[in-house]
Amino acid sequence: MTKPDLGLGRLERLRALLSAEVPALIVNSVANIRYLLEAPTMFDDDFGGILLVTEKTAALIVDSRYSGQTKEADLDCEVEPVVGSLWETLAKAAKRSKLRRAGFESRYLTVAQWQQLTKDVPIELVPAKDLVEQLRAVKEASEIDCLAKAARIADEVFNEILNFLGPGLSEREVALEIDFKMRRAGAEKSSFATIVATGPNSAYPHAGAGSRRTQLGDLIKMDFGAVYEGYHSDMTRTVVLGAATDRQRHVYAAVLEAQTAVLDGLRPGLTGAEADALARNVFESIGMAKNFGHNLGHGVGLEVHESPILGQKSEGRLDVGAVFTVEPGLYFPGFGGVRIEDMVVMRENGIQILTNSAKQLVEL
Amino acid sequence: MTKPDLGLGRLERLRALLSAEVPALIVNSVANIRYLLEAPTMFDDDFGGILLVTEKTAALIVDSRYSGQTKEADLDCEVEPVVGSLWETLAKAAKRSKLRRAGFESRYLTVAQWQQLTKDVPIELVPAKDLVEQLRAVKEASEIDCLAKAARIADEVFNEILNFLGPGLSEREVALEIDFKMRRAGAEKSSFATIVATGPNSAYPHAGAGSRRTQLGDLIKMDFGAVYEGYHSDMTRTVVLGAATDRQRHVYAAVLEAQTAVLDGLRPGLTGAEADALARNVFESIGMAKNFGHNLGHGVGLEVHESPILGQKSEGRLDVGAVFTVEPGLYFPGFGGVRIEDMVVMRENGIQILTNSAKQLVEL
Repeated sequence: MTKPDLGLGRLERLRALLSAEVPALIVNSVANIRYLLEAPTMFDDDFGGILLVTEKTAALIVDSRYSGQTKEADLDCEVEPVVGSLWETLAKAAKRSKLRRAGFESRYLTVAQWQQLTKDVPIELVPAKDLVEQLRAVKEASEIDCLAKAARIADEVFNEILNFLGPGLSEREVALEIDFKMRRAGAEKSSFATIVATGPNSAYPHAGAGSRRTQLGDLIKMDFGAVYEGYHSDMTRTVVLGAATDRQRHVYAAVLEAQTAVLDGLRPGLTGAEADALARNVFESIGMAKNFGHNLGHGVGLEVHESPILGQKSEGRLDVGAVFTVEPGLYFPGFGGVRIEDMVVMRENGIQILTNSAKQLVEL
Repeated sequence: MTKPDLGLGRLERLRALLSAEVPALIVNSVANIRYLLEAPTMFDDDFGGILLVTEKTAALIVDSRYSGQTKEADLDCEVEPVVGSLWETLAKAAKRSKLRRAGFESRYLTVAQWQQLTKDVPIELVPAKDLVEQLRAVKEASEIDCLAKAARIADEVFNEILNFLGPGLSEREVALEIDFKMRRAGAEKSSFATIVATGPNSAYPHAGAGSRRTQLGDLIKMDFGAVYEGYHSDMTRTVVLGAATDRQRHVYAAVLEAQTAVLDGLRPGLTGAEADALARNVFESIGMAKNFGHNLGHGVGLEVHESPILGQKSEGRLDVGAVFTVEPGLYFPGFGGVRIEDMVVMRENGIQILTNSAKQLVEL
C-alpha cells in the first residue's frame, strides 16, 4: 500500500484506492461520510444516508430529515434526496453514473441492508473493507489539532476532579461531574459512557459507573474523554483514596513501567502486535501477563475506536500521523485494577504524548 | 402471530417463536441481549458478545473485558469466555448443543461478521429478523414503570428549562443545560444527542444543537429524553421567544391539532400507517402535508428507536402494551418548524400519555 498523499483532497485520496475490482464505493458509515466530506460534526447518529463515490462523481443520498441542512452546507458532492426508498435512489444514481460494479462497506452494512441492496441495485456488489479507514488512520495536521484540544479538555477535567474526589461519592456522581466539567470546558459531549470503577469494581476493565460509593483505601479508575469538533479523546487514570497499600503501589508501578516501556519504545513502522508486546513483556517478566486481558490500545479520531489496533494479533503498522491510545492495565478479581492510558501521535522519531496529566501515583 | 404470554420468562417467550426453520437464535444486538437476560443496564456499547439461545440452553459468549462482571451477575444463562475468537467460541457452543442450524439477526450482523460466522461456524445459518424485537414491542408493567419515570424526568426538566430560556443563549448552551438537569434529576444519560434548533434552524427536523444564539421572535424546538434504568424517554416541545407571530401561531395550532387527532384516534389494532394518516390527513386538509416529511412516531424502550414504527408504509399493528412516540411536525425553510412529541402507551381502550408537559403555545 502506498502512503496517502496528504496534498490531495480526501475524496481524491479515496479515488486513488479505487481499482477494477472496486471501481466505486458505497459508503454507509456515517463517520466515513463525515470524514470524506470534511464535515466532522454534521449528521447525528440517526443519519441513515449513503455516499456513492465513483471515479468522477460523489453523490450523497439523504432522506427528507436531512436534505435541507445538507443542501445548505455546500458539501463537495451532489445531494440526492431519497425518492421511494434509499436503495432505489441509490440505484438511480448508479445508473446515471453507468456503474456496473461497486464496493460496499462490509464492516458496516448489515446483512438485512445487503439483502435490500442486492435486490434494488442491479450492479455487481463487492465487499470492501477499510478503504476509508486506512485514510483516516493517518491524521492531517488540522485533525491532530482537534485531537490535542480534545485531550487537553480531558486533562483539565482530570485535574479538577482530583479536588472533587473524596469518600462517600457514588461512581455515578463522579462520572456525572466528569461529564459536566468536560461539557463546560468546551466538549460537544463525552467520547463514551464515562467509566468510574471503584474498589473491587476496578477489577472489571469495562465496569461503567454504578451505585457503589467510594471508601478510604479504594482504587478509583476513571476512563473518559471529550469530543471536540467531532474528534474524540480517551484517557484513563487510577488513583487511591487515602494511603496506598503495598500491593496497590506494586501493581501501579508495574502498569506504569509497562506504559513507559511502550512510550519509550514506539517507532513508526512497528506493528500493533510489536507495540502490544512492549507492555506484555513487562507483565510477563513479573508473572502478571494473564492479568492484562485486553488490547494495548486503539486509534482515536472521528470515532473513539478506529484503526490502528494495538493488540496481540495486530499486523498493521503504526505509521507517522497515527493517533492512538496506550493503555496497559492489570486486573485482580476482588482486589481491583489499575489502568493508565494516554493518547499519542506517531511522529518521525517516536511518539508525541497528547495526554499531559501526571502519572505518579496519586493518594488523595 | 400469537400474542406473547407475559407470564413466561423472556427466554421462554423467545423459544416459543423458534421453529424448524429457526431452531435457535444467535443474538448479537446488545439491546436484545440486555432484554433477554433481564439486565437492562448491563454491558456498555463496546460489548461485542453473543447470546446463543437454543430450545434448552442459553450461552452468553463474552470477551475477557466483560467476563468478570458477567459471571458475578448470576444471569439466567451459561457464561462462556472467548477462547481464540468470538466465532470459534460460538462454534464450540453450537457443537455442544448439537446444533445443525440457527438463525442470526440480519438486522444487526454486518456482512463482515456474517462472512466470519459462515467461515467459523459450520452449521446452516438462516437470516432472521425481529424475533426479539416483536417481544420487546409489547412492554411488561415494570418496563412501563421505567419508561414513565424516564418521561417524568424529561417533563421536570422541560418545566425548569422554560425559566432558563432567554435571548442570547447558544443552542449548545441550552442543550447542555437540558442534559445537566436530566442527569441531576436521576437520568443515567440523555436518550440521544439533545436537539435545540432555534429560528430558521428549527426548519431542519434533525438539526442538532449549534452555535446560533437565540433572538426575540425565534421558534425554539427542543427534542430530548432521559434514560432511566436502561429505558429511554423522548419528547419535543416548541416554544416562541417573545410574542408569537400570526404565522407561528397558525403553524403551531396545526401541529397541535394533528397531534390531538392522533391521540384521540389511537386504538389497539390500528396499523402504524393508519395512525400516521390520522396526522397526515389534518395536514393534507390545510395543504401542508408536504411539510411533514418524517414518520409520525416510533417505539421507545431499551432503545430510543424500536418497534413499532408509525409511518406511511408501516403495516405492523399497535398492540396493547406498545410504547411509542406521537410527533407530528411542520417545517418551512427560512421560517422554521414546529414539532410536538409525546410518549404514549397503548391500553385496551386507547392510549395513556406518559409525557405530561403542557402543550398550549408558550411565549417566553
